[in-house]
Order: sequence, then structure tokens, then C-alpha cells
Amino acid sequence: MSSNPITQQLDEALAFMKDNASFLVVSHVQPDGDAISSTVVVGWLLQRLGKKAIMINESELPSRLQYLRGFDEIISLKQQQPELSFDAVIAVDCADYRRIGDVAALFPEDCKLLNIDHHPTNNGFGTVNVIWPEAAATVEILYDLIIHAGFVPDQECAGAVYTGLLTDTGGFRYSNTTPRVMEIAASLLALGVSGSQLADHLLEKMTIAKLKLLQTALARLTFSDDLKIGWLYIGKEDLAQCGAVSEDLEGIVNYALNVDGVEVGILFKETNDGAVKASMRSAGKADVAAIAQSFGGGGHVRASGCRLEGPLPDAMGSLVDAVRKALV
Amino acid sequence: MSSNPITQQLDEALAFMKDNASFLVVSHVQPDGDAISSTVVVGWLLQRLGKKAIMINESELPSRLQYLRGFDEIISLKQQQPELSFDAVIAVDCADYRRIGDVAALFPEDCKLLNIDHHPTNNGFGTVNVIWPEAAATVEILYDLIIHAGFVPDQECAGAVYTGLLTDTGGFRYSNTTPRVMEIAASLLALGVSGSQLADHLLEKMTIAKLKLLQTALARLTFSDDLKIGWLYIGKEDLAQCGAVSEDLEGIVNYALNVDGVEVGILFKETNDGAVKASMRSAGKADVAAIAQSFGGGGHVRASGCRLEGPLPDAMGSLVDAVRKALV
Repeated sequence: MSSNPITQQLDEALAFMKDNASFLVVSHVQPDGDAISSTVVVGWLLQRLGKKAIMINESELPSRLQYLRGFDEIISLKQQQPELSFDAVIAVDCADYRRIGDVAALFPEDCKLLNIDHHPTNNGFGTVNVIWPEAAATVEILYDLIIHAGFVPDQECAGAVYTGLLTDTGGFRYSNTTPRVMEIAASLLALGVSGSQLADHLLEKMTIAKLKLLQTALARLTFSDDLKIGWLYIGKEDLAQCGAVSEDLEGIVNYALNVDGVEVGILFKETNDGAVKASMRSAGKADVAAIAQSFGGGGHVRASGCRLEGPLPDAMGSLVDAVRKALV
Repeated sequence: MSSNPITQQLDEALAFMKDNASFLVVSHVQPDGDAISSTVVVGWLLQRLGKKAIMINESELPSRLQYLRGFDEIISLKQQQPELSFDAVIAVDCADYRRIGDVAALFPEDCKLLNIDHHPTNNGFGTVNVIWPEAAATVEILYDLIIHAGFVPDQECAGAVYTGLLTDTGGFRYSNTTPRVMEIAASLLALGVSGSQLADHLLEKMTIAKLKLLQTALARLTFSDDLKIGWLYIGKEDLAQCGAVSEDLEGIVNYALNVDGVEVGILFKETNDGAVKASMRSAGKADVAAIAQSFGGGGHVRASGCRLEGPLPDAMGSLVDAVRKALV
């Protein structure tokens, strides 16, 4: 054991892995790139340590990540309800215990749990906790853990770590892209990862359904006269007509926000019951959390959401009006 | 002088700078992010060395880069025809002598010229040449030159180097994103560069004119029945109607290419004389250079172009047909 608190945490995590023989590895519901990558990276490390690992998630798994080695071994509770036996649990990328979802129902009482996460709001729900809010992604912590354990990631494990970094930093574009992230990315590329193929597959390519949804939304993109507010909408029939799913809405609001001079971008989505969900993004000047709160919603200063009564044109009118007033 | 050929080249470049008192620093016509960044970075280094530097370019300068320190000092031959005196020329990011454009007319006979570039086709047209084809961008070479000279980039110089890396690697997404690129990026972030602000400004934001052009093109995006070919077109009135310029066409072809399963994406652009320019991109299977050649054009295996006779519908029909045959 070391007196350096970071090294000490890694020592404790490794001891947890060495002290048990079999593990259930779980990430959060509706898993993203970092969640699934972290799951398979922990699976890889446990295998190296001679341990048995069962990987699991409550939700359906995003098919775009199926190239990850180990992806096919992850059990989705949506597809099977297995009877499992294991000595301990490792939760990765779960900001709180509830994010584990229905998988938690499989845990025995007094379950030993190693909690590895980078969310600053993580309350330390594990028996052992490795929580680094300064990490851009949970895979960043796992990379250090692998090195600390004396291993070198093979090309596929390195690709999984790169996947988590790419997706949680928006392709090295978000403000969590630290020097450390770039140093790790350099090491992973040197290990043979094809960063350009991963970036292309994860960040550039889209399904035809998503492209159709983007076409639909972009054709309706509207701006206020002063070009400070941009908004687009998706009606309740549009998803089905495009063959798209809710996840395909992700990122579309940025087409409204990312025009020079725009301060607030809004995506309106009509729900099946005729209500309207609004996602707002701010370029910095407007506090869209405050605007969302005034409609009973919430979120962050630069990304928030709220629910409005329909019909859609009325909902759009009243929220755009509120944003206009907030920008004066 | 060192026996290491790379170190020796850097020594020669530094000697060139030290042996002369005043310099004309020029990059290529229609300059991109790496060209302008390289220009101001050389200006910064010459200033550190106590030298006089005049920065110049044949073309209009891209206004999106005006945040770069030194940008306002770069002379554009489009705006003024100055009489200049200098001892030597430094050409950056110019793949061949012609890329210097009309600025070359200002050079005296027997002009001493330092040629710093990363294009593999550079034929070494300088008196002194530093040509590193393995570098992702010319700023990558300049970063090493600065360190070799014993300086540390200040925050703004570091931001210019980051700008050149970002633009020439497509935001760390192209296959030229080497471990060395990521290591340099890590160092630049540690020097205080706001990578996320630069990425947002250079890669995410667009003008309202470009957005309108994208709306126009995307509304027309069409796919072959087997989803292997995607194409869109811009008519001769569209640029003016959107308030857009030719540069705004850049990247639009990717919306056709970046759909799962698409092998070839094409952007057709009607010219003012009624002819049609086609830009083709291949996902890998089709050799679009060969297709372009059969229409009198050329390019690379995965990115090529050709010129077709109008009218637009006929041109689109015949090229799409040729691509269809090539994909069989």
C-alpha cells in the first residue's frame, strides 16, 4: 500500500479483484460508449488476473459498439433473466446506485461492491470506491488501473479504452479533454489502435434512419430575426416515419446551436400523448436551466430540458418567447 | 550540427533564420488552418530570435482564423500590393513552388528560401528544405523547431499550433492522427490552450450561410436503392441565394458518404456556365480516382473529382450510373 491517495485507491481496487474469485461487472442503464467500454475493459483485466467475470447491463446494448471484444458476452436483462452466482460486484461509470437499474436485484445481501466512476456527484456507494472526478471517462481510470497492475493493454483492450475516451469527450472536443486524455490517447495509438476508424464509425457515420430524421429536422430549422435563437421540431409521427429511435435525436439540437451568433438552440419533440419535450442548449450567455425551471424542468446552465403542454405550435411559441425575454 | 538527419534539418533551418535579418513568410494560396497557423508561428519564432518578419499570402484570409495573434499583420495580395524589402523567404505548407502563387513575383533573383512542409510530394524547391511527410501538419514540424531552438510556446503560439493540428487532422479524426500528434496536443493543452473552444469555433460552428446551404443540399440527398451510393447537388443559383461562398461546400459531401453502408458519396455543383463539377468520396471499396479519370478528372482512390457537361440531371445520371457499374 502506498501513501499517495491515488495509488492507494488503485491498490485497494486491485486487492478487491485479487481477494475474490468471480465477479458481476455492471454499468449504468441506457449505456453509452464509456459504460460499455468500461465493462469490457474490466472483463479483460479480470481475465488477466485469472478471475471469472460475468458482464451484464439492464438495457439493450447499443449495436454500434458491437465491434468491442467481449460485447457479445454482455448479458442484457432485456433479453434474458439469468440465474447467476458470483462473489462480488464491480460497478463502472454509475454515478449513483440507482443507475445500476434492475441488475441490482441480482445482488445478494451484504454484497461486496467495487465502485469505479468519474462522475463528480458519485456518493461512494461501494464497499471500495475509486472516484476520480478529474477523469474525462471511467476508461481513463481503468487505463491507469491496468498500468498500475503491471499489464499492457492489447490492441483490442486499447481500442475499448480509446472508444470510451472518444465518446465521453465528443471526439476530443469537450472541455474535459485534458492533457492526460491526450497522453493516454497517444499511448493507445502507439499500441496499434486505429483512431481514425473508430472516430469514423462512432462519430461520423450514422444510420439511414438518423439521416432521415436529420433531414426532417433540418428542413424545419428556424431562427429568430436577430439570429440569437434557433429551433427545430420533431412531430410524434416523425420517428416512426424515419424508422428512427429516440437515441437518434441526440446531437440534432446542435445544428440549431452551432450557427455563428446563436445563443440558444432548442429541439422540440412531440410525445405520443401530445405533450412537448424541449431540449435547450446555451452558447454561454443564457442560463437555460433557469428558463427550464420556470417551466417545471431543470438541468445545467448550458444544457437543460422541460416538458410543455401541447399543441406543438403553442409550446414552441411560449418557450421561444421566454428565451427571447431571457436574452434581453 | 548533429548526425541525426532530423536534428540536422532543424539545425539548418535555425541557422537559416539566424544568418538573415529580415524575412518574408509565405504560405499557400487559398490558405487553410495549417497554412495560416504556420505563418504566424514562424512569425512568432522569428520575433523571439530578434528578426524582422513580414507575413504575406496571395489570397484573401479565412476570417474564421482572425483570433490568431498576428493574423491582422498578414498582408493579403488581394487587398494591397506592397513594396517590400527582405533578406530571405520562408515558405510554409507549400507542396510546390507554384502554391506560393503571385507572392513569388516579389522574390528577388537568387532568393534564399527555407521550405518547411509536410506534403510527401514536396520536391524540395528551397535553398534549405525541411520536409517531413510523416508530420500531420506543418505546425507539427514548427513545434519541434521551436523546442529545438530552446523556446517554449506561449499560450497564443501554442493555440496556433493546436489550430493547425485540429484543422489538418479533422479534429484528431483522420488517419494522420499519430501518437506524436496527440503528445504535442497534450503539451499544448498543458500550456493553457483551450482545446474545446478552438474545436467548437473551428469544427462545430458554421455561418448562417453555410447552414442554409447545408439545409438546401440535405433536402435533396438521394440514395441508390441498394443504399451504396448517396448524392446531393447544388444548383448555380443556390450559393447566391444562401449568401454562401464556394468554401462553404466543404464537408457537405460527407453527409452522403457517412451513412452506414454507403460506399460512394457525391456532391454535384452546377457551375455558372452550366457545366457540372462532381466531388466523389469512397468509403474504401470503390476507386473513385479511376471513375473520375474515365470522365477526364482525377484525384485519390478515396477522394476525387471531375467535370461533366450539363444539364445537371444528365450529368448526375451518367456519373451515378458509372459508380453503380464500378461497385458491381
